Amino acid sequence: MPKTKNAFYAQSGGVTAVINASACGVIETARKYKNKIGKVYAGRNGIIGALTEDLIDTSRESASAIAALKHTPSGAFGSCRYKLKSIEEHRAQYERLIEVFKAHDIGYFFYNGGGDSADTCLKVSQLSEKMGYPIVAVHVPKTVDNDLPITDNCPGFGSVAKYIAVSTREASFDVASMAKTSTKVFVLEVMGRHAGWIAAAGGLASTKDTEIPIVILFPEVTFDKEKFLARVDELVKKHGYCSVVVSEGVKGPDGKFLSDQGLRDAFGHAQLGGVAPVVANMIKEGLNLKYHWGVADYLQRAARHIASKADVDQAYAVGKAGVEFAVKGNNAVMPAIQRVSSKPYKWKIAMAPLAKVANVEKMMPKDFITPDGFGITAKCRQYLEPLIKGEDYPPYKDGLPQYVRLKNVPVKKKLKTEFKV
Amino acid sequence: MPKTKNAFYAQSGGVTAVINASACGVIETARKYKNKIGKVYAGRNGIIGALTEDLIDTSRESASAIAALKHTPSGAFGSCRYKLKSIEEHRAQYERLIEVFKAHDIGYFFYNGGGDSADTCLKVSQLSEKMGYPIVAVHVPKTVDNDLPITDNCPGFGSVAKYIAVSTREASFDVASMAKTSTKVFVLEVMGRHAGWIAAAGGLASTKDTEIPIVILFPEVTFDKEKFLARVDELVKKHGYCSVVVSEGVKGPDGKFLSDQGLRDAFGHAQLGGVAPVVANMIKEGLNLKYHWGVADYLQRAARHIASKADVDQAYAVGKAGVEFAVKGNNAVMPAIQRVSSKPYKWKIAMAPLAKVANVEKMMPKDFITPDGFGITAKCRQYLEPLIKGEDYPPYKDGLPQYVRLKNVPVKKKLKTEFKV
Repeated sequence: MPKTKNAFYAQSGGVTAVINASACGVIETARKYKNKIGKVYAGRNGIIGALTEDLIDTSRESASAIAALKHTPSGAFGSCRYKLKSIEEHRAQYERLIEVFKAHDIGYFFYNGGGDSADTCLKVSQLSEKMGYPIVAVHVPKTVDNDLPITDNCPGFGSVAKYIAVSTREASFDVASMAKTSTKVFVLEVMGRHAGWIAAAGGLASTKDTEIPIVILFPEVTFDKEKFLARVDELVKKHGYCSVVVSEGVKGPDGKFLSDQGLRDAFGHAQLGGVAPVVANMIKEGLNLKYHWGVADYLQRAARHIASKADVDQAYAVGKAGVEFAVKGNNAVMPAIQRVSSKPYKWKIAMAPLAKVANVEKMMPKDFITPDGFGITAKCRQYLEPLIKGEDYPPYKDGLPQYVRLKNVPVKKKLKTEFKV
Repeated sequence: MPKTKNAFYAQSGGVTAVINASACGVIETARKYKNKIGKVYAGRNGIIGALTEDLIDTSRESASAIAALKHTPSGAFGSCRYKLKSIEEHRAQYERLIEVFKAHDIGYFFYNGGGDSADTCLKVSQLSEKMGYPIVAVHVPKTVDNDLPITDNCPGFGSVAKYIAVSTREASFDVASMAKTSTKVFVLEVMGRHAGWIAAAGGLASTKDTEIPIVILFPEVTFDKEKFLARVDELVKKHGYCSVVVSEGVKGPDGKFLSDQGLRDAFGHAQLGGVAPVVANMIKEGLNLKYHWGVADYLQRAARHIASKADVDQAYAVGKAGVEFAVKGNNAVMPAIQRVSSKPYKWKIAMAPLAKVANVEKMMPKDFITPDGFGITAKCRQYLEPLIKGEDYPPYKDGLPQYVRLKNVPVKKKLKTEFKV
């Protein structure tokens, strides 16, 4: 029988409505493999927790607290934006990781994040081969951007997509009611610097039985002001109103972000604005239509109250599968979601080699965007629809969702050395 | 037995997540008084529908379609921003109303809106006395601003309050996770030009068992930049992060809206921005903290998916009571919500004279805001808490809420005359 090793788990990058569901999957499953995994130590604020020996003892949390992670948004152990350099560039960093892992008898490494985090995980997985420290490193995928390769979709994305689809539908109903004497265009700014996955989800708001005039502005499509205004004008003339879903990453013909308008206040200070007010202003100036605009920002990725059931299930499943892969000794892998069928939606978990995941960005296929550049195709809809399916409401108390806060008891430090990050 | 008369119902002003629940209450209840009320004709786009004889025959809608209004946000018959002048100022307008009402045998008038609409309803109620046309006019209260007098609260507000409280909690969990290496302050802009009721709801996000550092900026409190930055600085130093909920109506010491910063783009064009980016920019410049900001805009008042059960129930109840008052011959009244107790929350419907409602704005009591001007008091919390209680989820299909769109069959015009609005 193999010797028991402790596990390290951490969350990295922008958090989501369901990354804690993955944490739940990791911890609950690890607790079932007591013959292989001792304790699960969570890194406080991602890999920084490992480097600074700032570990959290998850065994101090009750089963019910861990279960509650499944319905709690955000990163329960704190996240970080911190990328490891390569072993060649910054060997001391890896020596430090080995020092901390050795001190706490850590043989499993679970890193829960997106593309950058996959890269970090891959580097850690090389500790065995390159530096002789035996470790099994598994990447647990998460990103609202939906831009990881191999996996059909990324946990975290489905819930943002659902939030944007629901919000776009609701706001469109609102503007439709107001259009006769007041607002005719509603502009919603959504996340997505590089890929238009989230913006595309706005298109789901319009269905056969509930058609809604929506113009989507994708980062993949160079913004053409005249064409855009013509499209809005056409829809408002036909329907009396329209909604615009604009990705924060939309760029103009000059290659600059549309949000980067060189805004100055009365004193000449630069102002950092969003893209929604810029687009809204164009509509006002170009078409003289009354508008409203909103910026979803963190609300979209934190909205656990309207999370997609499919997303919650998958987030849990990748955490669970990550542990199952690890206890079988699979190093440098990632649980990937494989779509078996769209209608009915069926999926399973496969094992992807991490080397093929790290530093590869999956863009939206060209045939997911309509030829005019303002909408989603039937193919895109077929891909997206299953991801927002089902509701998975958190429990409420006095009108508010009851999200858990863990005790996050620190593991006693064993090292006398410090490490500056 | 009295002669049967038809009823006119219309929606006015900014729509809400639950104004259609009031419509449902009016129509379902009217259908029960067949000996008094013939058909319910809805005005397309509020009072404009009456003036232009653009009426919708709600009897053409199935019972299930009318029932579905209870879970559908926005205004099913279209709303308007249109205020009647007084009878003395614009007699022709009232003569037109009488002409239309006579042509369609309308003896009941239900107007569903806020302060301005109460004024319109009051003027219509005077048709009997001043112009000899017998009508029973009842105002059905609705406004997210919560600024109508006499009624303890306004239908529509509770659901916005719940949305803002839930969103603030969720975004705060998010920023708390990111704070170590990235965003430390999240700024959320909410509605409320004159009164801080909605901003106050942001304070509900923090409870005894889930404390969250929140700074609220109320329109009632003159913005003090130094004091504000000091407060944010203090909270970030103590908790590592904080959230700011800012009302769109916040004004600076110069009496101007804080959002009105005279922003110009690179070409010198004026840009209409929100207040969230202005506040966020101050935090960046003054404290050098990384921030994110969101603007809820229409999302907050259209968010039927997270409506307050108490709000839905009350919106329905005021519609129902409006009809009950009317069939008893009560002219120029409004169903008002009376709070019987806060814990447990109990309320009932009372009858308020419309003359005491129209053109009176209810501001937030001074003792609802903490002495430092940045938070809500226990008294405010006690008032607000019951209003967000309970969830009332709409039905979903393929991941999206199923909101009804009525057929809105027009009533055949009987008049040859037109009226220009």
